[in-house]
Amino acid sequence: MVIVMQPGAPKADIDAVIAKVEELGFTPHPIFGVEKTVVAVIGEGAYDAADMFESLPSVDRAVPIGQPYKLAGSDVKPEKTVVTVGDVPIGGERLAVIAGPCAIESREQFLETAKLVKSHGVRIVRGSAFKPRTSPHDFQGLGLKGLELLKEVKEELGLYLVNEIMEPGQLDAMVGVVDMLQIGARNMQNFALLSAVGKSGLPVLLKRGIASTIDDFLKAAEYIMVTGNHNVVLCERGIRTFETATRFTLDLSMVPVVRRLSHLPILVDPSHAAGQHDYVPPLAKAAVAVGADGLFVETHFRPDQALCDGPQALSPTEFAELMEALPAFAEAAGRTI
Amino acid sequence: MVIVMQPGAPKADIDAVIAKVEELGFTPHPIFGVEKTVVAVIGEGAYDAADMFESLPSVDRAVPIGQPYKLAGSDVKPEKTVVTVGDVPIGGERLAVIAGPCAIESREQFLETAKLVKSHGVRIVRGSAFKPRTSPHDFQGLGLKGLELLKEVKEELGLYLVNEIMEPGQLDAMVGVVDMLQIGARNMQNFALLSAVGKSGLPVLLKRGIASTIDDFLKAAEYIMVTGNHNVVLCERGIRTFETATRFTLDLSMVPVVRRLSHLPILVDPSHAAGQHDYVPPLAKAAVAVGADGLFVETHFRPDQALCDGPQALSPTEFAELMEALPAFAEAAGRTI
Amino acid sequence: MVIVMQPGAPKADIDAVIAKVEELGFTPHPIFGVEKTVVAVIGEGAYDAADMFESLPSVDRAVPIGQPYKLAGSDVKPEKTVVTVGDVPIGGERLAVIAGPCAIESREQFLETAKLVKSHGVRIVRGSAFKPRTSPHDFQGLGLKGLELLKEVKEELGLYLVNEIMEPGQLDAMVGVVDMLQIGARNMQNFALLSAVGKSGLPVLLKRGIASTIDDFLKAAEYIMVTGNHNVVLCERGIRTFETATRFTLDLSMVPVVRRLSHLPILVDPSHAAGQHDYVPPLAKAAVAVGADGLFVETHFRPDQALCDGPQALSPTEFAELMEALPAFAEAAGRTI
Amino acid sequence: MVIVMQPGAPKADIDAVIAKVEELGFTPHPIFGVEKTVVAVIGEGAYDAADMFESLPSVDRAVPIGQPYKLAGSDVKPEKTVVTVGDVPIGGERLAVIAGPCAIESREQFLETAKLVKSHGVRIVRGSAFKPRTSPHDFQGLGLKGLELLKEVKEELGLYLVNEIMEPGQLDAMVGVVDMLQIGARNMQNFALLSAVGKSGLPVLLKRGIASTIDDFLKAAEYIMVTGNHNVVLCERGIRTFETATRFTLDLSMVPVVRRLSHLPILVDPSHAAGQHDYVPPLAKAAVAVGADGLFVETHFRPDQALCDGPQALSPTEFAELMEALPAFAEAAGRTI
Repeated sequence: MVIVMQPGAPKADIDAVIAKVEELGFTPHPIFGVEKTVVAVIGEGAYDAADMFESLPSVDRAVPIGQPYKLAGSDVKPEKTVVTVGDVPIGGERLAVIAGPCAIESREQFLETAKLVKSHGVRIVRGSAFKPRTSPHDFQGLGLKGLELLKEVKEELGLYLVNEIMEPGQLDAMVGVVDMLQIGARNMQNFALLSAVGKSGLPVLLKRGIASTIDDFLKAAEYIMVTGNHNVVLCERGIRTFETATRFTLDLSMVPVVRRLSHLPILVDPSHAAGQHDYVPPLAKAAVAVGADGLFVETHFRPDQALCDGPQALSPTEFAELMEALPAFAEAAGRTI
Repeated sequence: MVIVMQPGAPKADIDAVIAKVEELGFTPHPIFGVEKTVVAVIGEGAYDAADMFESLPSVDRAVPIGQPYKLAGSDVKPEKTVVTVGDVPIGGERLAVIAGPCAIESREQFLETAKLVKSHGVRIVRGSAFKPRTSPHDFQGLGLKGLELLKEVKEELGLYLVNEIMEPGQLDAMVGVVDMLQIGARNMQNFALLSAVGKSGLPVLLKRGIASTIDDFLKAAEYIMVTGNHNVVLCERGIRTFETATRFTLDLSMVPVVRRLSHLPILVDPSHAAGQHDYVPPLAKAAVAVGADGLFVETHFRPDQALCDGPQALSPTEFAELMEALPAFAEAAGRTI
Repeated sequence: MVIVMQPGAPKADIDAVIAKVEELGFTPHPIFGVEKTVVAVIGEGAYDAADMFESLPSVDRAVPIGQPYKLAGSDVKPEKTVVTVGDVPIGGERLAVIAGPCAIESREQFLETAKLVKSHGVRIVRGSAFKPRTSPHDFQGLGLKGLELLKEVKEELGLYLVNEIMEPGQLDAMVGVVDMLQIGARNMQNFALLSAVGKSGLPVLLKRGIASTIDDFLKAAEYIMVTGNHNVVLCERGIRTFETATRFTLDLSMVPVVRRLSHLPILVDPSHAAGQHDYVPPLAKAAVAVGADGLFVETHFRPDQALCDGPQALSPTEFAELMEALPAFAEAAGRTI
Repeated sequence: MVIVMQPGAPKADIDAVIAKVEELGFTPHPIFGVEKTVVAVIGEGAYDAADMFESLPSVDRAVPIGQPYKLAGSDVKPEKTVVTVGDVPIGGERLAVIAGPCAIESREQFLETAKLVKSHGVRIVRGSAFKPRTSPHDFQGLGLKGLELLKEVKEELGLYLVNEIMEPGQLDAMVGVVDMLQIGARNMQNFALLSAVGKSGLPVLLKRGIASTIDDFLKAAEYIMVTGNHNVVLCERGIRTFETATRFTLDLSMVPVVRRLSHLPILVDPSHAAGQHDYVPPLAKAAVAVGADGLFVETHFRPDQALCDGPQALSPTEFAELMEALPAFAEAAGRTI
């Protein structure tokens, strides 16, 4: 950490800062510059102490230096993590594709869509029983009844299942049904939920909040990891910007940035970001090219009848075309699919 | 709702849209323009059906028209709502000031800060027992022990208490201690929590999410109100933008916008938005001038020792100066304080 | 400047950084920490050299420390600047109100609106002859003919005139007509224009770009000031964020931030930020409360006939009500109007 | 256009709207709904008239429907445009790569870097003589002297040259030297410059402003095209968002969106968006995958000595690796390079 003093800071104030640094067990390194004095602070944990200095007199600001991710950071674990869902690895050389409808609406709808994705080699299917919706007047999912249907279908087809969990109270119903728990973007900083999900021991798909910096995102992963559960897969799904031509702005730059900062695998969800099905295939290809470990895509056997997010779901034809196009991009990126 | 067809849409596709409108029980009004055909849709509930049309062939987009807030909207209740905390009204002619530390850190810290704010006429005190923090390695609050201390002090001083609730499981411990439940910005779309808090019957202070549009915000209020609990106070606390000179960008324009769209009272929290104490007094004055129903401000009897958010807390002197300055602004705005 | 090395940086790379620091004439202060090595750099001008270090091997980043505004900064000139337009001071104890229509549309329109604003004590009138419009198919202003009409009317009424300049080539026509040149938000980083306007010696109203940080804004002011013309008035007019309920998000927090960083006066334009007339009066009051040096407001004697930005112009009645309400806010803020 | 009336709008106000629609030569279609009345407006040019209705009494808002790009829009020209620079087509089946240093710093620097890019098959080189810099205290380019050096080198190597123009006054010096004029992000709405550049007849590379919507961007292209010069190539280079881990957020979603709305070719500049060289190759690959017509990339024969933007320039090794990796991505995308 570097503490920057205001110009003309009196010696007494600089001394007070130095004294506080020592009181906290760190080593102060004052540097008296032409324009300003700065105090460099050395010691384990100094990163986290910046806040405590900013209210001292004559302190302009305290700049943390170093990486605050003790578990998610590449400083502490340089080699990439591979998370396994059932027997499907995420984060290895082979790209993972998770696909399915936004929500389960009926046995037929889920079964037909799951068969569709399975026929293209997909082994992990999505389709939420509980749906977070911005308005309470919108369709909220089938709930517990949906979970039962999901279980039947996934066992029938031999697929693994990822489902969004919205509160710790849903955990009991989900254990034994789902193979991976999803934390949605709205709940990325629902710390009670992160902790509960971490303790379940199940692999977790953590979606980035729409206004979360990469730094916030990795700290949210850290909340899961402090429970001892390190099976966390990150998922970029668009951030909120001024541009409204797409529902969100897919931040593909985050993939190489996270790759540098963290060892956790990263998926990309182009469907929620785009909000419109025609933009999904080009963005999915770009996600593979930029180095993502896989995709999280919405498809529906009949998008025009979807109760939720129909406009962003790929039709069976569009999904087939995408799955046929991806291997060439994967190969160009040095991966398989 | 108005459904806009793509240029050159074939008649069959337009007919399919018209048929679907009728199937849903609405009345279609096709208008054949020079460049495009649009189909206006009339009927109760047509607002919510836009999604169902956007996946039909040749449909460019469906534009909802009307107000989606069935309970929070000024369409349904033009007169302003007054929410009462203990015997303190929020939303009436007199401005409400809620003040106190970010978190309770010790009995002494909370007692001294509570005395300070009381001495300036404040009747509702803040100071969280549970603190949501971006990193799991930061101070998380005193928890249940903090709640006990809060209860002792508020009763000793005859104050009302608002506290942030982070998960439904904390509700039992909070009932009987807190007089108003706060939903923090990170949980604004934690729908399970909104619902639980609504059912408690306690007044709710709902903070705006950092990337929530006003539309999202009012829909979150709607989640509480559908439980039958209409005691919702909205609180603006800054949105995330590209500007980093302040921690967030306080969106004071939202006050007149919400005033037009909704009957709910609105407070402004300049402390979290600014992130720095010197910017808090001017922003607090601006909040009164723009028409807010009150303020939510952080102060601490010794900011340099705060365990959390010290840089944004007003010192006792700064708080006193602000409280002395506010009446003139309140009077200019046609209010009292 | 502080240069942060990557963890495990080899000694040779650290030595290379130190050598480069010395080569540039600065003094290096290497600090060997537990996790990382940093090199603090002392010397006049070290602020600007950060870029040159970030491409060296094993350098993580270079953090500039200090204020980069050599002319606009409060470091170099702590006392506030007062800019005079005709004999009207901007930045002193009395607030300045600049008002008028968006554009001059006809002699009658400008004359009637100018009379209106004059009757409320306004002494500087606005109303552009040249209008920057997002689409080339929109009304672009009356041009040179408009300038003639403006000159006639301002002389007839004894008012001062501010007008937007869009290219250096318009300068000759404007000198002798306008008393203050306005740089619009779209041209805030049109450096050729900033320079030309600076050299004119006329006072300049510089509007903030919609995606400009405060830092960018002050550096744009610096471009004018390096020509020797220090008569720069800053104007906040909203930044672009994800919120679309208002046209832009008025960033009132910038007023106390700029007050801290710079000595230049600051006006606020609530009209362009809001984009809708009903939101203008509350935002104007808030601007006074937050400490702005004045307002830049649109009004029109008949808003429903305006050729440009009619929805945001105050009607004569609304303008009168605002001007009657402002003195109480000014007084509360320790100012006159 | 659809004009939405406020709930309970009196008949007189609806009649006034209808009368104004007819007065402007359009055909009104009033639709009396359960909650609200809307007036659909049919007629050539109705799109542009929305502003004129929003100030009428009882009008809630006017929603434009249709495409406002009369020249840049795919409505008017569905087939893709190919722009030719020298004999290099941009927008056809073969991807275009424009590469070179940020600015020309010396004859040697430009010559060596130009040789480097030529050796990888690049035929259009960049390297500005005039540099827009946020601060006036930064390196501003070599100016006219730089242009002479550029001319010598491009002729020596048989390359085409693109250079940024910052004001109409630079046009004369550039004609005969540059083969394509670049409008930088800061000048995207410098309408005088757009017009001057359009009239030059030279191909134009138009970079997107950092806070420009896709709609703003296409309207800026329209400013060039109304001069009769349709040789416009669009270039995405990142937008400003809250995320600061990269300098800007590269908006790759804009590529398929623009592809749908416009016939103009689109390049992507990953260098300015990322601000850091290691992120450039993955983003360049993603740009090809998402369907861009080519790349605009910075490279430097010795990045550690660059006077401007060194941290984002690819080293000769990195550039070579990228150029070797691209063909596989181009082929996967159905293109050549």
